[in-house]
Amino acid sequence: MSIRSISLLGATGSIGAQVADLVAASPETCQLVALSADKNDKDLLALARRFRPRLLAVNDPAAWQRLSAALADEPVEVLCGEEGQIAVAACGADVVIVAAVGMAALAPALAAVEASPVVALANKECLVSGGALLMAAARTHACQILPLDSEHHAIFQLLAEAERAHVAGVILTASGGPFLHTDLDALRTVTPAQAVRHPVWSMGAKISVDSATMMNKGLELIEAQHLFGLAPATLSVLIHPQALIHALIEFADGSLRAQLAAPDMRVPLAAALAWPEPSAHNFAALKPGALQTLELSPPDRSRFPCLALAEAAQKTGGAAPVVLNAANEEAVAAFLCGRIGFTEIAERIAAQLDAPLPPPPHTLAEIVECDGATRRAFRQRLDGARSPGPHHKTTRDTRDTLDNEKDRRAWMG
Amino acid sequence: MSIRSISLLGATGSIGAQVADLVAASPETCQLVALSADKNDKDLLALARRFRPRLLAVNDPAAWQRLSAALADEPVEVLCGEEGQIAVAACGADVVIVAAVGMAALAPALAAVEASPVVALANKECLVSGGALLMAAARTHACQILPLDSEHHAIFQLLAEAERAHVAGVILTASGGPFLHTDLDALRTVTPAQAVRHPVWSMGAKISVDSATMMNKGLELIEAQHLFGLAPATLSVLIHPQALIHALIEFADGSLRAQLAAPDMRVPLAAALAWPEPSAHNFAALKPGALQTLELSPPDRSRFPCLALAEAAQKTGGAAPVVLNAANEEAVAAFLCGRIGFTEIAERIAAQLDAPLPPPPHTLAEIVECDGATRRAFRQRLDGARSPGPHHKTTRDTRDTLDNEKDRRAWMG
Repeated sequence: MSIRSISLLGATGSIGAQVADLVAASPETCQLVALSADKNDKDLLALARRFRPRLLAVNDPAAWQRLSAALADEPVEVLCGEEGQIAVAACGADVVIVAAVGMAALAPALAAVEASPVVALANKECLVSGGALLMAAARTHACQILPLDSEHHAIFQLLAEAERAHVAGVILTASGGPFLHTDLDALRTVTPAQAVRHPVWSMGAKISVDSATMMNKGLELIEAQHLFGLAPATLSVLIHPQALIHALIEFADGSLRAQLAAPDMRVPLAAALAWPEPSAHNFAALKPGALQTLELSPPDRSRFPCLALAEAAQKTGGAAPVVLNAANEEAVAAFLCGRIGFTEIAERIAAQLDAPLPPPPHTLAEIVECDGATRRAFRQRLDGARSPGPHHKTTRDTRDTLDNEKDRRAWMG
Repeated sequence: MSIRSISLLGATGSIGAQVADLVAASPETCQLVALSADKNDKDLLALARRFRPRLLAVNDPAAWQRLSAALADEPVEVLCGEEGQIAVAACGADVVIVAAVGMAALAPALAAVEASPVVALANKECLVSGGALLMAAARTHACQILPLDSEHHAIFQLLAEAERAHVAGVILTASGGPFLHTDLDALRTVTPAQAVRHPVWSMGAKISVDSATMMNKGLELIEAQHLFGLAPATLSVLIHPQALIHALIEFADGSLRAQLAAPDMRVPLAAALAWPEPSAHNFAALKPGALQTLELSPPDRSRFPCLALAEAAQKTGGAAPVVLNAANEEAVAAFLCGRIGFTEIAERIAAQLDAPLPPPPHTLAEIVECDGATRRAFRQRLDGARSPGPHHKTTRDTRDTLDNEKDRRAWMG
């Protein structure tokens, strides 16, 4: 195998760090040629010194100034803002890894799909809001999209092994997050620190809160629909606290197949770097002693109303998933900076979905507009309901509605 | 699909009854053309009246006389003894189902492999003793052997779906049988009635006792070795009391695949009748509520010494699996008719394996001779140790050593 060039969006997050370690461990098979981050120029500079990429991008102008100065004498281009992210995505690498968070990654992901043969997605928001657009672009440009969620990686493996015509359904598992057994009344007073403390996975703040509300699993249902062309009615969820079974598929004959692996993001990451060959890594072998007890149970939607909201939005289709995702990004941001309580996340998303839906968005511009309009409406309701306290921070984060970088970054991991 | 002709050996047992019901439910896809039983002419007659096969066989001469008389005016041939079993096996049906018990089914199974394109095996003893011979004949005659054990059916499905080069190991699950948690001292006084009371599967007496000792799983390890060409070191066993996961395969990347299905023999039976198409039946669908808790744990070989004996015999190879199986058939028969205690089953098999092994048998005649010699030696030890009590019954059951049909039948189910 020749050396694969890798472009990595979201290089300074939790996934980015694991990709960097995998690449460092296999310099004979892959090489980082382009890296992006949101605002963390310090870590991005360290990665640049370690891997010598030819292209870097950060969103934050101040971070860009510091990074440019530090690398002034180096043979590396340093870009700023969304154009920078898109340039990193569209650099023509053999594999583009999209590990940036939020709907903001949709435009870069589209650029990557148009420019590279393999795009590995750790970002689920862009599939929820722009899944149809992204998958159509992948077909047009013969790009293989590889999912990096452990659940979708498992489904990808299981479906690749199955005779598709005999597949009757797909089950995603969910750990249930930190509040699986918490008293329902106590959920009202859950703090951000409690919500991000996931029992199995160590992840960024946004996805950790999504796991606590189980919106994460709802987003994954919509993600699976697009990634694998599955009808919503064939998708379901089971709670599985041990997080060893990542997905199951149901066959027409009534039997099931399950994929099991240690809960380690390096499994799907290494698989994506090696695709279509199997990963040569084996850091995640499940020893028999590790299997012990595997619990599976249907989720309680009164405990996890966000899951029910996502299922309803998936069923509705059209603009509903875009509104769901935008409202959720806003609600999680508002929760993380202390403006709303934990149970209010679902309530505010529900209110947003109860409002008349805009027409189904199809193009990138329409999706971005629908997303932005939802966020504006969400904030109007939020500001109308309560006057900002001393810790008030706005929660905008899509490029098109962005007017204050500092505010936006306040709640980002 | 045209109507498939089915030949069924062991038609009056538990598997036979389920095959008959499946065929009766799908007269447009399959038809029973030949049936055999050991001695149960009453049930065989009822099956003959229900399905109108053209060929019948029973082992027992008196049963043959009654059956012949009852069907004297019907267009059906009625045969007796091993020749009859072989004629039913070799009748050229589209699918031959071997559901007869014990090593005695080896010669008919070989005849079936030579005469039919598909042979479905519920009998594991003939694979343990004659696996190499049987699989070589299947290759020569382009016969597809389909396993009917739920575990091997699961492995068959999983391996068919996997890239074989990436498979690192195969795990068979075992329910653990009725004595998984019984006090070890209490095992000495276990009665045949207790031993055949399996917690999950309703099966014949021989296989139920094998499940209680876990010799059944040991035989299945050897069966898997032959069926799938797997090295013994890549095979292992996990206890799984819920009997929903039937097998797992381990991949080189450390991930696993599991096959799950309701514990219902109709799943592999319907699959065999439809092969290579998938079964259209769905009587065994696992509803999410059925999954609940799946426990997996390594077996305790001090509780299940028969498993350790089988693993050692598999490792030794040559005559060892033939001796293991013959001694086990004799020991189970002696236990079922009250001549030895439950824990003595393993002790007597171990004694037989500790004696000098004969040279590796290769041909059918050599395997039958090795099997017979083991049984004679086993009985000599048994008779030398204890004088026959009032309930003494001999336990011979292979055709070549058979000199008293009545005695042989005394312990058969």
